[in-house]
Parts: sequence; C-alpha cells; structure tokens
Amino acid sequence: MRGEQCGRDRGSQEGTACASCGPRRPRTRSEEPSTVPTTVNARSTAGPRVPFQRTTIERRDLRPEDVRIDIAYAGICHSDIHTARGEWGATNYPLVPGHEIAGTVAEVGSAVTKYAVGDRVGVGCFVDSCRECENCLAGEEQYCLQGETGTYGGVQDGKPTDGGYSQQIVVAQDYVLGIPEGIGLDVAAPLLCAGITLYSPLKHWGAGPGTKVAVVGLGGLGHMGVKIAHALGAEVTVLSQSLKKQEDGLRLGADHFFATSDPETFQQLRGRFDLIVNTVSATLDLDAYLGMLRVNGTLVEVGAPEQPMTEAAFSLIQNRRSLAGSKIGGIRETQEMLDFCAEHGLGAEIEVISADQIDEAYERIVASDVRYRFVIDASTV
Amino acid sequence: MRGEQCGRDRGSQEGTACASCGPRRPRTRSEEPSTVPTTVNARSTAGPRVPFQRTTIERRDLRPEDVRIDIAYAGICHSDIHTARGEWGATNYPLVPGHEIAGTVAEVGSAVTKYAVGDRVGVGCFVDSCRECENCLAGEEQYCLQGETGTYGGVQDGKPTDGGYSQQIVVAQDYVLGIPEGIGLDVAAPLLCAGITLYSPLKHWGAGPGTKVAVVGLGGLGHMGVKIAHALGAEVTVLSQSLKKQEDGLRLGADHFFATSDPETFQQLRGRFDLIVNTVSATLDLDAYLGMLRVNGTLVEVGAPEQPMTEAAFSLIQNRRSLAGSKIGGIRETQEMLDFCAEHGLGAEIEVISADQIDEAYERIVASDVRYRFVIDASTV
Repeated sequence: MRGEQCGRDRGSQEGTACASCGPRRPRTRSEEPSTVPTTVNARSTAGPRVPFQRTTIERRDLRPEDVRIDIAYAGICHSDIHTARGEWGATNYPLVPGHEIAGTVAEVGSAVTKYAVGDRVGVGCFVDSCRECENCLAGEEQYCLQGETGTYGGVQDGKPTDGGYSQQIVVAQDYVLGIPEGIGLDVAAPLLCAGITLYSPLKHWGAGPGTKVAVVGLGGLGHMGVKIAHALGAEVTVLSQSLKKQEDGLRLGADHFFATSDPETFQQLRGRFDLIVNTVSATLDLDAYLGMLRVNGTLVEVGAPEQPMTEAAFSLIQNRRSLAGSKIGGIRETQEMLDFCAEHGLGAEIEVISADQIDEAYERIVASDVRYRFVIDASTV
Repeated sequence: MRGEQCGRDRGSQEGTACASCGPRRPRTRSEEPSTVPTTVNARSTAGPRVPFQRTTIERRDLRPEDVRIDIAYAGICHSDIHTARGEWGATNYPLVPGHEIAGTVAEVGSAVTKYAVGDRVGVGCFVDSCRECENCLAGEEQYCLQGETGTYGGVQDGKPTDGGYSQQIVVAQDYVLGIPEGIGLDVAAPLLCAGITLYSPLKHWGAGPGTKVAVVGLGGLGHMGVKIAHALGAEVTVLSQSLKKQEDGLRLGADHFFATSDPETFQQLRGRFDLIVNTVSATLDLDAYLGMLRVNGTLVEVGAPEQPMTEAAFSLIQNRRSLAGSKIGGIRETQEMLDFCAEHGLGAEIEVISADQIDEAYERIVASDVRYRFVIDASTV
C-alpha cells in the first residue's frame, strides 16, 4: 500500500518507512531531470577561524541514479573543525562541512530503485568512489584506490563538494544509507561517521562475548564505541584522562572505567585487553597502551594524530601485538551498523543546536565540552 | 623394533629416528639421577667484544623429565652478538650463547616419554617457562607471562643458563624438539630460531596461495622467510637494499626481487602486499613500507630495531593496515615448523665453522658477509 501511495519501485528498501509522503513534499520521480540546479541555504566558512555565515549553494539537477535529500540534521565531527581550520592540509574555501547527514528523500532520479520519496536516509563521509578498484568491488569504498569523493571538500564534476550544513544534498543512490525506523534522525546523524568509525574496527577485530575491549577517550567517537562494543557483548573498559565522565561511561554500557592520568592504571591493566580502540588524537605513550594488550591484541587508531606515532619494536614483538588503523566503513557495513543500532536501540548522545551556534560548538568541542555530539537542526540553516 | 632396541616408551615420537642407538653412546635411562653435574667444554665471552675462549661449564644432573643432548651443531644468531656485546641491556658474563641447537639424545631421565637415546633433537630460544599462565597453556610459551627462561642468559635454579656453544645441554623434555629424518642436523640448527621466527608470522598472517608476501632483508632470517613463504604457496618478493643477492633470492624461491635503495620500488609496489615481514633491525622509513600494503595488510617486525619506530597514523588508517611484531614461536608450532621443513626439504643455507672462528664470524655477520647462517661444529668446541 505504501509503495502504491508513493508510486515507487522500492527495491530492497521495501520495509523502510515513508514517513514524509504526503502534501508536505509533493515532489515526484524526476522523469526528466530539471536542467536548473537547485539553490539551497547552507552555512560556510571563508577561512581558518572565520565565523560561519549563511550562504546559498547549488545542488545539481537530478541524474537518473540520484537521490535528493531534505536534510533534517547534520552532526558536527571533529574532522569538520580540522578541515575548516585548515589543519589537515590546504582547504578550499568557502567550505560547507558536514558528513553526518540524516534526512528524508525529497526526489529521486528515473533509475533509482533503492529509495523512494519520504524514505529516511543518511549520507556519511563520502558521496562517490571509483566503483572499479579492488577495494570498491569488495565493498570497502572508504579505501578506494582512486580516492573516494568526500562529502565535503572533495571534487565532483570538477567542482568542490558541499557537505551537510545545508538544507539539501543530492547523492547517487549507491552512496545513500537507509535509516531504519526506531532511530530518531537526530540521534542517527552522528552514526554516519562516529558510529561507523567505531563499529567497523570493533567488528573487524572480533569484539564480542568473551573479549575485553578498551575505548580510549569518551567523546563523540568514544561514546559510540562504548555503546556498540557493549551491544556486541564485549566486556568494555573506558580509558579516560580523568574519572570525570565515569558515571556517564558506566551508564552508556562500560563495565570498567579507569583514569589514564593515574600511572597505576597501566600497571593494573597490563596484558588485559584483546582490543583497544583509540579515539583520541593527542599523542599517547603508545608503549604504555600496547602493554595493556594480551597475546594477539590490537591497538587501533581511529582518530588521526597530527604528530607521528612512536613505539618500541619490543612493545609489538612481545605478545604478538598489532598497532593498526581503521577509517570509517564501506557502504554495506555502514548499512549493517545502522541496522544493528536500530535493533539494539542505539543512537548518539546529542545536543541539538541551531546553525547560528556552529562557531560556539566548535570551541566547545575543542575544549571537550560536549556530551557527546552536537547536531545542527537543518531547519535553522 | 626400534623401541625395543632402545628399551624406551617413545610416546608420541614413535616415528622419530633413533640414529645413534648403539655402542657409540651406551648411556641408558638414568633411573637414579647422578648427583654430580657433568662438566663439558664450551666457548664463552667475558665481556663486550672480549674474544671467545674455551672454558668448561657444568650441566645439571638429570631430573626425571630431563633429556641430555649431545650437541652436534649450534647456529650463530644475530641475537647472540647483541647479547654478547651487551647491546640489549646488561649481560651476565661470562656468557655462553647459542639457541639454535641440534644434536642427539645422550641420556634421558626416568620419567621421559617423548625422547629416547639417539633421537635427533633440537633446542631453541627457551628451555623452560611457567607452564601455568594463559599463554603457556595456549602453547605460546614464547610469550610466557612470567618470562620464558632463555636458553642462555636466562636464570634457572638461581643460576645463569648456558647456551649451545658447548658440547652438551640438559633440557626438560617439554622444551626439546624432534628433528625429523630428512633434514641434516647442520642445516636444521638455524631452524630453531631463524626458521620459527619466520614460520610463525607467515602462518599467523595467512601466507599461502593467492597471497603476496614481501620479505625485507635477505640474511639469516630473511632467507628462511623466502624458503618457507614459497613452500607455503605465497607469491614472494624480496626487498633488499641492493640487487646484489638477486640471483640467490630467486634461487631460494622468490618470485620478485627489488632494491629498496631505488625510490621507484616504493612507487611501483604501492598497495601490493598482504604481508611484509621485516627482518632488518636498522631503522626503516616505515611509512614508505606501510604504503606497499594493500587493504588489511600487515607489516610484521621480527628483528628488533634498537631505535623507536615512527610512523604516521594515516599510514595505518588508510587501507586498514597493521604494524605488528612476532617473536619466535611456541614449542608446538616449532615442532610443526620442523615437520613442515622436513616435508618440503627445507633447511638453512649455512657455512659450518669451527669454534675458533666465532669472533671472526661475528664480524662477518655484522658486515652482512654470510650466506646465510654460520653454524658451529660442536665437535670443535
């Protein structure tokens, strides 16, 4: 019935809600794509630490495989700040950041089969990839050998891409995720980066019943790590600089909470963990952290420290330890993560802000003063 | 029949040869262990770069579980040099190095079931461990949480252990390996350290048909890596400083050979390998080497660079790469390696020397002037 209402071939997304069907967004399948790009509101910054301001950007006219999304919420990721401030190499300004995007489908191209108008959908860190390299073919588009196309700061059709601090975005259906019923779009938005960034290494390195997992840092990434590792059945320990967030950590699903400012912690937890996921981009004493891994244990970096990392070979050789990195996740795994979160009732802990508060939010994130993710209400953009 | 000849319960070693049964070594099971230790010749060094000299050491009287081994050959490992020269922390002198030991069983204690007089056996890097920790119980004694007892430079019964540069050694049966027929004792000796040091990570990280493996450095460790990886079915590439050893590398089983002094190598091999095993203890440009790993690839350190290692987090995060370490192997896996080598006709490439040539051999090893392992003829000790 719902399919008939929408007049859509829902493809594999038959079970997905069609919450917004109706008079509010009467757009239909774009049989003949409009030739005029759509102008939408956005928030951009003109340079490092230049305050965000309201602007308009153009979203491309729909191609057959495209989905136009009315953005409802966009999470603020620490990467947005690094990029906006030019801390990760040269940034093209003006920049519209945002790669934790949740909303509803407003319009679909003529060849779209996966989504229909009104579907609850998300967009993560990339909006395209080469689709041909071995990594893309393996569903690991985040490691595309040609370089996946960033949701913002990337280049598509010769033009810079604009991210989620805006009202709408147009993305090819293969790079759009379905957000299941049971997760609010606001708490779902951060899953598109923070959620998958933790889910992917936890799954890859086998977090589950009988394993001991530590999450370093209880911030935007770390708090999702605790929730997901707990839901996967692992015994979860938070390693935080102080005990200030202990109550939160235990509430979110941690079994143990230790302060890394206390040297005793490293003695007490020596040889304990199967997996440590480090979400902190500050430079750590890696040998001390590696010492907490038991045989075959892995320390995974998911933040991106700007300084080189340094460790003694013996720290790896003893106990056959690994130091690894992990970067978000592919489209298939991101969908799996969203389904897992819906099944387990997991969303991010968020503070919804208006678009006028972006600069203030950036300052608070840098000062670690957020529990645990800012999400922009896109209706204020 | 052989069992009857020896008058032994051969336990699980029924198939092992009993080559030396007979008049040459008429010792029998030690029903009542002698109370007088046995004095044997050995070669020791009295301090860093002090020439080796002939000495005598005492081997303990046999306990019920002990095996006395007539040493035939002892390989010279680079670790011997580091320890003899005090480069790995304080060394207790006089030092009798040697942890690549091959010989035959001369006498067994009353409770020994695994070996009989005349059996071809070996001893590797450790002669005991706690036998109770989770790693020992898992057969990974090399990672014993109490610290395994080194074959030399360790402490047993309150006394320093003496290694294989000697005529005999006494070791508990659980730490003795069987050397199958089909491998000469001379070419088998280096397998006890160099062989297992490469076999273990190659097996752990899945080297086999369809995988691309690189071995960095074609020395004592590296040449065994090439042989074993090839026998496992992997496509093998040698990464050597120059092309000087190219012919050797290809003869030993490598499919490709590249010079790391040529920057083009790193471009050409970008994203190529599933596994890189680094046998070189010099400091490498790790980011360049990590760049040669494909998705989920691992760079394993089996040498032990004295300097800290340094790499960029992005080198790990891109392609979900790992930097790992691996240390020899457990008793069970060492036996598996010896059986594998016998099955595939693999031994080390060696140069047999007399005990008077140890100092000279050390100099040549440090100068990379050995193809590929020096082995001391123990009859000259």
